Order: sequence, then C-alpha cells, then structure tokens
Amino acid sequence: MRMVDIIAKKRDGGELSTEEIRFLVTGYTDGSIPDYQMSAWAMAVLFRGMTARETGDLTLAMAGSGEQLDLSSLPGMKVDKHSTGGVGDKITLVVAPLVAAAGIPVAKMSGRGLGYSGGTIDKLESFTGFQVERSREQFLQQVRDIGVSVIGQSGNLTPADKKLYALRDVTATVEAVPLIASSIMSKKIAAGADAILLDVKVGKGAFMKSLEQAETLARAMVEIGSQVGRKTVAVISDMNQPLGFAVGNALEVKEAIETLAGKGPEDLTELALAIGSRMLVLGGLVSSVEEGRQKLLEIIASGKAVDKLAEMVEAQGGVKDEVYSPEKLPQAQILHAILAKEDGYVAEIDAEAIGHASVVLGAGRQTKDMPIDLAVGIVLHKKRGDQVTAGEPLATIHANQETLLRSALEAMQDAFLIAQQPPEKQALIYKIVE
Amino acid sequence: MRMVDIIAKKRDGGELSTEEIRFLVTGYTDGSIPDYQMSAWAMAVLFRGMTARETGDLTLAMAGSGEQLDLSSLPGMKVDKHSTGGVGDKITLVVAPLVAAAGIPVAKMSGRGLGYSGGTIDKLESFTGFQVERSREQFLQQVRDIGVSVIGQSGNLTPADKKLYALRDVTATVEAVPLIASSIMSKKIAAGADAILLDVKVGKGAFMKSLEQAETLARAMVEIGSQVGRKTVAVISDMNQPLGFAVGNALEVKEAIETLAGKGPEDLTELALAIGSRMLVLGGLVSSVEEGRQKLLEIIASGKAVDKLAEMVEAQGGVKDEVYSPEKLPQAQILHAILAKEDGYVAEIDAEAIGHASVVLGAGRQTKDMPIDLAVGIVLHKKRGDQVTAGEPLATIHANQETLLRSALEAMQDAFLIAQQPPEKQALIYKIVE
Repeated sequence: MRMVDIIAKKRDGGELSTEEIRFLVTGYTDGSIPDYQMSAWAMAVLFRGMTARETGDLTLAMAGSGEQLDLSSLPGMKVDKHSTGGVGDKITLVVAPLVAAAGIPVAKMSGRGLGYSGGTIDKLESFTGFQVERSREQFLQQVRDIGVSVIGQSGNLTPADKKLYALRDVTATVEAVPLIASSIMSKKIAAGADAILLDVKVGKGAFMKSLEQAETLARAMVEIGSQVGRKTVAVISDMNQPLGFAVGNALEVKEAIETLAGKGPEDLTELALAIGSRMLVLGGLVSSVEEGRQKLLEIIASGKAVDKLAEMVEAQGGVKDEVYSPEKLPQAQILHAILAKEDGYVAEIDAEAIGHASVVLGAGRQTKDMPIDLAVGIVLHKKRGDQVTAGEPLATIHANQETLLRSALEAMQDAFLIAQQPPEKQALIYKIVE
Repeated sequence: MRMVDIIAKKRDGGELSTEEIRFLVTGYTDGSIPDYQMSAWAMAVLFRGMTARETGDLTLAMAGSGEQLDLSSLPGMKVDKHSTGGVGDKITLVVAPLVAAAGIPVAKMSGRGLGYSGGTIDKLESFTGFQVERSREQFLQQVRDIGVSVIGQSGNLTPADKKLYALRDVTATVEAVPLIASSIMSKKIAAGADAILLDVKVGKGAFMKSLEQAETLARAMVEIGSQVGRKTVAVISDMNQPLGFAVGNALEVKEAIETLAGKGPEDLTELALAIGSRMLVLGGLVSSVEEGRQKLLEIIASGKAVDKLAEMVEAQGGVKDEVYSPEKLPQAQILHAILAKEDGYVAEIDAEAIGHASVVLGAGRQTKDMPIDLAVGIVLHKKRGDQVTAGEPLATIHANQETLLRSALEAMQDAFLIAQQPPEKQALIYKIVE
C-alpha cells in the first residue's frame, strides 16, 4: 500500500477501504507517512468529503492511535459531553455536578482554552488548590466515591488526531467536516465514552457561522456515533451572543454556581437542562427528556447540585468553602461599566467581539501555554431583546491593568447594537440531531 | 503574508496576486515554507485551477528562483523546443542540427531519461567520447562557432520547480495542468529561450491519454508564453505507436542520422519538418511554415544536416566518424525477431508496452541514476496500417542478456494487434495550438 495511491483515490472521489484508512492513520502516527502527504490528503478530503463508513473508520483508527481510557470498572453508561466552543460557555461546570448528582457517573477529561473559547480546566483552577492533574487511579476512584471528576487531558490520547489537528491548522484544511467530526469523536471514544452528547454552537461567536454548517457537522458526528456503536445526540445552540452573562474564568464559575443553585441566567439554565436531561436519557436513567428535566430541576431545588460541585472541588484538593462563598474566588481590581448611549432595545451582542475583549484582558490565551488571569472578564447586564435607557450599564469589564482595560474597551466598542424596535426573538436551541 | 492564507484563498477559488505567488515560490525555495503547506496548496490548485495570469506569474517566479541562462550574447532569436515525452521520440536529435544548419542558434539543455521517455543526453552519449557536461563558456562558444550545442541540465536552474516537481510526484498532484505547464515553461525560460516550440504527445505511450487533455495542456503553455512575452507554439502529435521504428539509445541515434540524410521513417521525418519549420518561423528566419519546410528539405538534400550533427559531435569531444558510419555505434549481442502469427494488417502498436520492454532491456531507467545500456532496444519493421503475412518479422529486439530478452518478450507479448481489415488512418499531427 502506498500513501500516494490513497491520496489519488480520494482526489478522484473514491471511497477508501478500512485498511487504507488504518494504514494512513498508523503511518502518520509512527512518522512513516510524512506531513506533506497527509496535508495533500486532507485537502483532497476537503474537496471530496468522506462517506459515513470512511469517517467512522477514521474516528476509530484515531481513537486507537494511542492510549485509551478504560472506564468499564465504573458502573452504568458513561455519557460524555462536548461543546464545539463558544463565548461564556460554562455548561460543563453546571452539567457535570448536576448529572452526577442525578446518578450518571461523570469521568471527564477537559481541555484548556485557546482563543476566546475558554477551557473548563482553566475555569476550575479558579478554586484555590484545585488539582486538574490526577493519576488514572485517583481519577477513577473519585468517580467511584462521589460520582464525578473533571481533570485535564493527560497521557497519550489520540496522538494521530493531535498531529493531524496541528497540521490542518497551518494548511487551510481545518474546515473539512469529516475531519472536524472525527477529531472530536475520536477524543471522546478514546476517553471511554459509551454515549456522547454534543453541544454544537452556531453563530457569530462560534466556528460554525450558519445553521446549515452546524447541522452538517452535527449530522456527521451523530452518524459516526451510529457507525462506531456510541449513541450520540447533538444539540445545536445559539452562539450569536455570549451564553449567560459572565465571560472569564472565575466570573463564569460564580455564574455556574448560581445556576446550580437555581438562580442562574435563563439561557444558561435552559441549555444546561436541555443537555443534562438528554444525558440522563442517554445514560438510561430516565426514559424521556421531560422526565430528565424534572429530575434535574428537583436536584437543583434540593441543593444537591451545588453540594456535588463542592464535593468535587474538595475531592480534587480545592477549597470547598469557595463554592458556598463565591466572593472568595479571584476578583479583579478594576471594574469599569459600559453605559448605553441611547434608549432602545439590545438588538445584537457580538459574541466574537466580547470573546476577543476577554482574551485581551487576559482571560484567554492567544497562544498555547500563555498564562491567564483567572479574575478578569466581562459581565453583561443586558442580553439581546432587553430594553435599555441611556446611561444604564450594558456590561462591566473586570480588569487588572488599565492598559488592558483600554484595549478591551476598544475591542468591545461595537459589541452592543441598540435599535429602536425590539429584535425578533432568536431561538436558544435551534435543533436536536439524533 | 502567511502561506496558510494563500492556501485558503486558492482553496476557496480565489485568484492569487503576483506578490502572493512570488512569496510562495521564494519561501518554498528558501525553505521557509514547508513541504506540507506546498502540497496542500498544490492539491487546492488541482481542484481550483489557476488563471492565465497566475500561471504566468508562477512560471516567471520559478524561472527566477535560481540561476538563469543568459543567451543574449548569441545572435538572433533563441528558439527552444520541448517534448512532453514519448516512446522513440528522437526529434531533438534530428531537429537541433537541422535548424542550426538553417541558421537558428541552438543552445539547448536536455535531460536524462526516466521511465520509457528516453533522454536526449543519454542518446547522445552513444557517440564515443561525447561530452554532455560543459562549462557555460564552452557551451556558448560552441554555439557561436558552429551554431549548435546540446548539453545536460547543469547548475542551479529552477530549484523551485525541482522541489515542487518531486513533491507533486509523491502527493498525487502531478496532474494539475497549471503546475505541469508552468514547470515546463519555467525551465525553458530559465534556459534562455526567446521563443518556444512544444511537442505535446497524446496517446497510449504519453502522459496525456486524450486529445482533450493534451489540448488543455498545450493551451495552458501557449497562454503562459503570451503572458510572459515568449512566443510559443504547440504541436499536438500522436503517441499511440512509437515514433519512427527505433526505440533505444544508439538505435535511435542511427535512425536520427538516417532522417537527417533524408532516408528516415515517414512519421519521424514529417514531425521533424513540422517542428523544425515552425522553429524557423519563430526564429524569424522564414515567414511561413511552408517556406521553412522547403528550406529544411533543401538542407537535408544537401547533406548539410548530417554534417551539422557531425560538427556538433566533434565539438563536444565525440568521434565524428560514427555519424558517417553509424554501424560503429554500440551494437547489442543478441538479435531476436518477433514474427507475425497471422496474415492481416497492423491495427495497433502499443507504445506503452514497447516503451516498457525497452526499459526492461536496459535502454531506460527505472529509477534515477540507474546505469543504462546504450546498445539495446527494439526496432519495429511494421507500423500501424502496414500489411503483414504470417511469419514476417514485426520487430527485432536488440538485447545483451538472455534473461532480459525473455522479460522484454513478455512485456511485448500483446504489443501488436493484427486485424483482418486495415485500420482507419490516424493522424500524426492532431492540432497546432498557437
């Protein structure tokens, strides 16, 4: 078998065999297939696409390219959750303790943030002493003991995907849907998921700008799930404006705690319930989404959701008290309000601009391994559709440096669009793909 | 400027600017743009194509990526000639001395053969002592003295093309027409051509299998010529059967000498006149193809064409006498005739099979730097359309080893197709593109 023939086959619109896909993934992982052949293949995939069978094979081959997490010692269905990334997306902080409190074991590996898509792991480090690096045994034992653990991606999981992802980034082949889909799914499978809930973001602050693109990606991933025997459901949700009010690590943790206590923003609560209830269904704990939703609302009302987060923080070396007194979390020095210049309605909040401003403040990384400032960020006071009067605060910037504050203000300059008429209502959840 | 943006632009069907094309050629030559970006770009070009302006810019950038031959000290228009390669293609051996004898200066760099497309340089080495490596000064001085020199490609000509060509070979991007066209044209321009005559081969024994493909390539190259101010004419000629009767280095030299003496095969003579006469027009020596043809026929009849070859052989250190006594050229030990098994007409001669058999015998290289056997090859006795009777020889194999002879016989097993009816006449020259 020769890689050049595999490239040519894909270039000419052919369907690669399982053996050919294994050959290329294995060869790329061990270095016998060079980057320059892989990038030509990726570009051919971008133009020609891949069949569901090919994409499933690619996913399994990448999942099998390194270490794989064995969660079989944990009881029940292991349901993982993944978001394609958005501004203010703290869903994992809410959903992990919530569904764990309901009885779904959550053994979750999460990433650090890059750009304005924050990382759950970064956010959790807002708790003093919180450990994100744990041994495999500590990790599994914690899930056995309290039902939930969220740690950083460790070990040699999906090395083929890591290499290919980095290569796609510099060869303008990021956009190939089968490659995006198999990249996400291979990581979830290698991390031991039996079932997968996907939160596919669409809008200005997301990678997928149109519903059509988002749906194509969602369908590709659900199809992979069915090819590889992992029941997969995708929720397509709005990312034109930030999710909730808070953007920034500790700020988002506070908002997540409020949401677990039943006092969170409406959109964040709704999406967390939509995702969490479907995770309960996937885990076989309830038989309908509505039943799952009721169960989760009861858990929130009982205070068990906040308690579960506190248990997890404590189990991972953090200060549990900070969950009950979130004002002890990192706080920025400078608070600066952005005021409405006119009366009207908030017609648009540009999620990308706000995400960018949060990175400027230091809440996100511009390049890998950059240190971040856990305290800084932006808190919105108004969301799309809200009425405002001139002089009312639209948002507060939490900053630690005057110069960064000024840059953030500049980045946010056109983030709010005020109109004289209320905007048409926009859905939070556009579609469920399953 | 970032290469990833240039790849994305081409991927999305955009037209690259002159600066972008220069950036990528310069960066690829100096190594700052890696192979994996270049191959992704090449695949994008394969799908999206390039405009005439882009292809012209690419050609000039590659021509300028290394050393360039300055032929301005030679008088008159320098007309170069290039063939896309075929079996038995010894046109340069005929045309170079022929047009030089007519008064067109021929300062030509030629390549060695790879696969069944023989190299002019290999063929010339059939003359005892013939030197293909010459200093720049020797080369130019010889053209000043006798009007013609054919040497090997030396120096650092078009390094960008060399790198890209090797990369395309292993990334299934050879087929991209703008890249084929600019590769050929950039070499001719770097070698100092003022005008270019292209012999684009089409058929079983050529890279281009259909007339449509050949014409697309021919038009792309002629268009480049007009973009970069080098008048270019392409002759699209048949390569379903070998050109002439002889295939193999010394065998082809003998046939070229016969053709220069006016006693060559009809097809070889016709094509040499078609190409040579157009070179005279391009060089401004005559005003019509017909006038050029008459002039060349006169030169052949006068014996001056053979004399010019002899002069060149002598000037480059070879034994001039071998031109007048070609039986002194390398001769194979074993001659084996392939006989017709039935009466009929030769309906097809598979050029690819015969080319392959010649490589098997040792006349061509399977890999770069392989030694070749100058004496061996195949001499056809019948061409397409000829009548044969059972037992009559169709071809003679000239071999130096029994085992290789047997392999060659196997390779040629189905090379001749005999039919009961004469085949339809096939054109030698399908089209002139200018």
